[in-house]
Formats: sequence, C-alpha cells, structure tokens
Amino acid sequence: MENIIISKDNPVLKLYRRLSSSKKERARYGLFVLEGFRIVRDAVRENAALHSLILTEQAAGRFSELTEDHRGDARRIIISDELGRRISSTQTPQGVFAICHIPRDRTVIFGDNGRYIALCGLQDPGNLGMIIRTADALGIDGALLCGCCDLYSPKTIRSTMGSVFRMRISLTDSEEDLFGLLSSNGVETSAAVIDKDAEEISSCGFSGRQAVLIGNEGSGLSSETAARCTRRVTIPMNGTIDSLNAAMAAGILMWELRK
Amino acid sequence: MENIIISKDNPVLKLYRRLSSSKKERARYGLFVLEGFRIVRDAVRENAALHSLILTEQAAGRFSELTEDHRGDARRIIISDELGRRISSTQTPQGVFAICHIPRDRTVIFGDNGRYIALCGLQDPGNLGMIIRTADALGIDGALLCGCCDLYSPKTIRSTMGSVFRMRISLTDSEEDLFGLLSSNGVETSAAVIDKDAEEISSCGFSGRQAVLIGNEGSGLSSETAARCTRRVTIPMNGTIDSLNAAMAAGILMWELRK
Repeated sequence: MENIIISKDNPVLKLYRRLSSSKKERARYGLFVLEGFRIVRDAVRENAALHSLILTEQAAGRFSELTEDHRGDARRIIISDELGRRISSTQTPQGVFAICHIPRDRTVIFGDNGRYIALCGLQDPGNLGMIIRTADALGIDGALLCGCCDLYSPKTIRSTMGSVFRMRISLTDSEEDLFGLLSSNGVETSAAVIDKDAEEISSCGFSGRQAVLIGNEGSGLSSETAARCTRRVTIPMNGTIDSLNAAMAAGILMWELRK
Repeated sequence: MENIIISKDNPVLKLYRRLSSSKKERARYGLFVLEGFRIVRDAVRENAALHSLILTEQAAGRFSELTEDHRGDARRIIISDELGRRISSTQTPQGVFAICHIPRDRTVIFGDNGRYIALCGLQDPGNLGMIIRTADALGIDGALLCGCCDLYSPKTIRSTMGSVFRMRISLTDSEEDLFGLLSSNGVETSAAVIDKDAEEISSCGFSGRQAVLIGNEGSGLSSETAARCTRRVTIPMNGTIDSLNAAMAAGILMWELRK
C-alpha cells in the first residue's frame, strides 16, 4: 500500500499549484499541469513527457489503467480526496492530475506542400485551444503562435482536448521571428482579413507551402502585419468582424487551406 | 426625473427573474430575457418586440441611446444599481436588461435554392448559440431545431450574439414533424455522420433546396434518423467524433452547403 499524501505542503503539490496559476512559473520550470481523466489519458497515450502523475485515493482505484499504461518514468503520487478538491480547478473534480514537461521537440517541420496556421495576438484561451484541436482534426501540419495567450495555461490545454500532444506547434517571440521563420522556409503567407476586396478563400487554389495568418479576436490582424503577407484572403459573410467567432473563422480558413 | 425602483418585489423584476431561470415560464408567457448592452442594442436595431427595457440608474445615463433608438412600445423602467447586481447573471453587470417577446413570425421560409441547417438533440447552449450565429454570418436561409436545449435560455441567447433576431428559426416537436416539414417543402436532406464511406461534404455539389442534419454533441445522429435522410455526408478528419467540436463541424458543413 502506497503512502497517501495528506499535507498541502508536499513539494509536488506546491509545484502543481504554482504551475497552475502562473505563466512565469511554467516558463521557469518548463512544466505545465493537466487535470482530468481524458486529458491525462491522452498525454499517456501520446507518450508525452510526464513529470508526475497525481491521483486521489478514489481516482487511483477507478483509473488504475493510467499508471499501468504509462511507459515513462513519471513519479506517481496518491493524495487524499480532500487535497484533490483543493488543487482542482473544477467543481466536480475527477481526482486525476499530472505535471508535464513543455515539449522542446514538437516544433513545426516545413515539408512539401505543408499547410500551416499562424495565430497573432489571440487572447482567449478557449479560442486558442479550439483552433489547435481543429487544426489537428483537419490535418494542418503545424501552428505558429505569436503574441498569443499562454498555450500552457490550464484553460487552453483543456480546450485543446489532447491535440496539444499531437500538433506540431512553434512559439515565436515577435512578428520579425514569425515572418523570418516562414520566409526562410519558403512558406507563402495569406492574411485573413474582413474586406470584400480581398481574395475569397475558396477560390485561392493554394499550392506549395502555405500559411494563413489570423489576428486578434477583437481587432484582427494589424494592417502592417497584413501588408507583410503575400496576399489577403477573406471569408465572404454577412455583417462585421464579430459575425464569426475567431475559432470558427480559423476553422473555415484551415478547411479551405488543406484542400 | 423618473421613479427609481428599489424593491425586488416589483412585478417586472419578478417576471424577469422567473423568465431568466425557467424554460416553463418562458413558454408560458411567450417571453424571454436579454442581458448586456450589445444584445439589447441588437434587439432594438432589429426591431425585436420588446416587452420591457430595464436599466440601472448608472446604465440609464451611459446607454441613453437604447431608449432613444427604440421604436416600439416597450415599458422602460429604471432600477437601483443594487437591484441590477441582484438580477444579473454576470460578475460585472452592465446594468442593461430587457424582456422580449418570443417571435411568432420568424419561422423558416422555403424559397428557391434555400439552404437550411437542422439540429437534432443539441444539448450545449454555447454550441447552439454559436451555430445560429455562424448560420447567420454565412447566409444560411433558416435553422430547424428538434429536441435541442432551449433556444431562449439566457446562455443560448447570449452566444447567438444577436443572430437570434436575424435568423429564421423553426422549432419542431418531433422528428416526424421535422421530416414532414422538410419533405412537404421539397427539401433534400443530408445526414452529417462520422463515416469514411459517406460522401465527402466538399464533393456533394448541392443544388435546389437542401438541409444538413446535425446530431447531438456526444452521440451524433441516431442511425434511424440518418437512414431517413436522402444521403449521408461527412467531413474527412483525423480521429474520432470528439475531434471536431459540434459547432465547428456545423460551421464547416454550412460553409460547404451555401457554396
């Protein structure tokens, strides 16, 4: 029988809480947290580099497959159900948590006819996560993030529904870096804009390496950023920039991009 | 200077609270509630039949355009900021509320080459609202709802972002009614399924009146429902039914449907 941790001062739990609430701490340690059976199971299945698996007493019995399936060297700890409720960010916790290494080897690879999405300044974790999930489902070859909200925050991770472990994702520090990376790899760029005079996305006929750039939910791409792209593309629609949710617009653009 | 209502027993406020929390009460009175400047402004702009406009003292000064722009005969009441916080369902209330008549004359019209979306058993208000919003943005001619969560709940209404006042929407009581309505109007039906053997949505070449049917988030359309449709269509993707969020899948299907 394993020891059951009941102290909130346990160092792994203290680390979990720090990582859960602070982007700075995540960057400092190169670690992020997972909560919930489904996302932890996805991490185990995709052989993500787990640092620790944390299960409540109750969950340890119910989800024993998680530790059986795990092939890495994650430390496994069992905590009291009470501590599980304390560290959980949900109202009905499943008692399944993990600490995971931020991957260093899952950056974007630029292959023949590669199709990419570049996200500039997205601020909503739910949108960012849903776009990563959709990119994965639609077979987009990689996502490049520039000035977005933190990919490794609990909210974003949750809304990727496990796609964060499957997608190739590169984080760039500035638009200089983003455009440098794309142009040095021979990627043509299309700025997604709301403008009746831009090319309709469905008549673009993409060939070769192609990236679509998508801007902030409220304000879109800046005109300077759009001007740096090879072309400007649009989704014909009724209404204004708010008419399509940013993730929905990204989904339709990616759907056309991969055709 | 108008009277400022400070009693929570004011009949309009009591009605607001009942409508806010109960589908049964909404059906009984044929009314639903709106909260927030943007959605109330959309209702005013679209000439929705407002029963009452409710503003907090603070909001009455800040958003005076709402009452100036309103051309109907809604009753306007001013409440204390404290009461505004009480009836609000958000953490940072704007103090703008309305009670609105459920429209009776905005049902779906079946015109030449009409393109429709039929939603069967959707249970997530955010998904339902986002689909209505996307249908509006993409120029879909109408939405038919069957066995879905309540269109007029505050959550669904909020996530339509005002499209509920612009879209033509019909509620049907059963699948019998839904298929009866579609077939008597000469609408061809396509069941959206996850099945590699179904027709790829992008190669369907829709013509004439067409509806795509979309099922519940977790379980999709039942095989009986799918079998009643003219054909079966699919979005080719990696992974399982969970890979695309239901609203995202609906968005891509509607995008192809309107081509």
